[in-house]
Amino acid sequence: MKSFIPPKRTLMGPGPSDVSPRVLEAMARPTIGHLDPAFQKLMEEIKILLRYAFKTENKLTFPVSAPGSAGMETCFANLVEKGDKVIVCVNGVFGTRMVENVIRCGGEAIVVNDEWGKPVSIEKVETELKANPDVKIVAFVAAETSTGVASDTRTLCKLARAHDCLTIVDAVTSLGGSELDVDGWGIDAIYSGSQKCLSCPPGISPVSFNDRAIEKIKKREKPVQSWFMDLNLVMGYWDGEGGRSYHHTAPVNAMYALHESLLILYEEGLENAWKRHSEMSQKLREGFNAMGIRYLVEEKYALPQLNTILIPDHITDEAAIRAKLLNDHNLEIGAGLGALAGKVWRVGLMGHSARIENVEKCLAAFKAVMN
Amino acid sequence: MKSFIPPKRTLMGPGPSDVSPRVLEAMARPTIGHLDPAFQKLMEEIKILLRYAFKTENKLTFPVSAPGSAGMETCFANLVEKGDKVIVCVNGVFGTRMVENVIRCGGEAIVVNDEWGKPVSIEKVETELKANPDVKIVAFVAAETSTGVASDTRTLCKLARAHDCLTIVDAVTSLGGSELDVDGWGIDAIYSGSQKCLSCPPGISPVSFNDRAIEKIKKREKPVQSWFMDLNLVMGYWDGEGGRSYHHTAPVNAMYALHESLLILYEEGLENAWKRHSEMSQKLREGFNAMGIRYLVEEKYALPQLNTILIPDHITDEAAIRAKLLNDHNLEIGAGLGALAGKVWRVGLMGHSARIENVEKCLAAFKAVMN
Repeated sequence: MKSFIPPKRTLMGPGPSDVSPRVLEAMARPTIGHLDPAFQKLMEEIKILLRYAFKTENKLTFPVSAPGSAGMETCFANLVEKGDKVIVCVNGVFGTRMVENVIRCGGEAIVVNDEWGKPVSIEKVETELKANPDVKIVAFVAAETSTGVASDTRTLCKLARAHDCLTIVDAVTSLGGSELDVDGWGIDAIYSGSQKCLSCPPGISPVSFNDRAIEKIKKREKPVQSWFMDLNLVMGYWDGEGGRSYHHTAPVNAMYALHESLLILYEEGLENAWKRHSEMSQKLREGFNAMGIRYLVEEKYALPQLNTILIPDHITDEAAIRAKLLNDHNLEIGAGLGALAGKVWRVGLMGHSARIENVEKCLAAFKAVMN
Repeated sequence: MKSFIPPKRTLMGPGPSDVSPRVLEAMARPTIGHLDPAFQKLMEEIKILLRYAFKTENKLTFPVSAPGSAGMETCFANLVEKGDKVIVCVNGVFGTRMVENVIRCGGEAIVVNDEWGKPVSIEKVETELKANPDVKIVAFVAAETSTGVASDTRTLCKLARAHDCLTIVDAVTSLGGSELDVDGWGIDAIYSGSQKCLSCPPGISPVSFNDRAIEKIKKREKPVQSWFMDLNLVMGYWDGEGGRSYHHTAPVNAMYALHESLLILYEEGLENAWKRHSEMSQKLREGFNAMGIRYLVEEKYALPQLNTILIPDHITDEAAIRAKLLNDHNLEIGAGLGALAGKVWRVGLMGHSARIENVEKCLAAFKAVMN
């Protein structure tokens, strides 16, 4: 057995995305202690940069020391109490996972189903809210990583607030790639991932909670069922006021990487990053259109950072095409998930991957393998 | 705000330990997809190397994609069912945390208390086992990171097995630093951390479960309360047979680092690594003894990788001494935790930190600041 030298891929799947050399370099800096004053300064800067990226002034904004699915669970485990009714909008894999989270936290999930590839229906959610006046939380995926569809987060949050519900929003694929405004839209709890439009290596999940969410957590009758994810404890570590109390050992080098990736986003400017994703997506679309390739999602609902295309009918072995892209062109794209397996491919243009050279490489590789 | 350049520390606290340049270099290699065939090959190698480090043939041996405290919770959340009686041995901070885990999983904790700095009492555990024939699990810390004491894991496991109990063993500080034999000692479930004697950056928790443990998990009446930690789901991702099913996005670069650190351990040889820790600890002890510094733990129970020394009476501001070590000598040592705060310092000699130059640097720095 010897040292692992990974192949050099171009990552245009649903994440991880290409990681900038700046971020990889930051990650390789010498490890320091998780209670070192220098590390605590880094933690403060990460919180500031995350607030910028999320467009929030929420004090409780920090990166969970685990992947996006743990960020999701952090939101549900803290906010859902036994017996709580939660409306969960399901229009893809990650909505389904939210339902699973609600149940495991002892909540009751009221599922609002929409077709995979379509946005969450505002009308259906409103109907359920009216039919169930005791609903506590509305949970949905802002940008479905399994379909590439954007839902109307602003309207859904407004609606939930009008019915005195909290919102839990999955922004794993949104953050840094398309419009997201935590405070402006009134999102109460949100989670994301490091490996999508932030272009950081996977493993970290930025989250943010506003005061309404924190109030519910503080009023819980029973402790959060997870010790690792209990925000009452985690807050003591990430909150700089009055000294930090040890909770767990933060993934120090992953935090160097996250800091650098957030700094890159800050230097570019959030709105500029959204614009870049949109422009690159447009160029990719023109190329695919010229090849006769169609999209799963109607253009007005399509995420620029995740382009889900229908596998042409004449392709009988879609896995062989993906293998060819990977092996002959070092290009990774994503397969369809769940109900869409074998029907779509997911082409990501996330963060550092949303560059013209990637668009061109991708189109050229598709042309080569589809012949 | 600018890129974060960490100070260059010598890490001789309770972890993280100094990370070898080889491991940092590995971590900075280009990110690939978590479903890439090349990454799957890496995962297989990591499992093989972890089995070597744990001394086990357990199939279910893999790294949890989160810090040691999530590894702990993975063991408890999967193995403890509502109403299960669990004997938890508490002789330091991490035993206390185990109690918290049992309660949050709906179990009933029978606490066996021992003085902090003393090993777990075999007699007390035996008494509780006899008094409670319906106990399902015995949980204890093999190497208490808060005190530097080693307990007799072999005997505790034998005793638990004789009473038809499963064992959950905390080996966060043990793995790679002192004798540990998962199969030989009959440990049923074990968790560790990447940032101690493996000298990898923090954030990953290697775990291993034998067939007896898996049997209990498979027979559970209710699903595991955590979706992220549910081994029935995680197994589908880490198990190579019949293809992998997506569960979460693995922290790809952290896995490069873990692989390299395990490879370094394999190249040195496990027994040689234990011997090195022991020898370095002896040299440190001689130096501290010569300075009149005493140890918390009786020598025969003291961990070589974590040397807990009593703060001399004449030191009135121990935090100032640690600050001086850090600021003037770039040397990190650990403070006392919990009941031992202000009473002890913890000096780690873990993994890549267990080198003669570190021992010498540490002793010289102590001499300088204690004057």
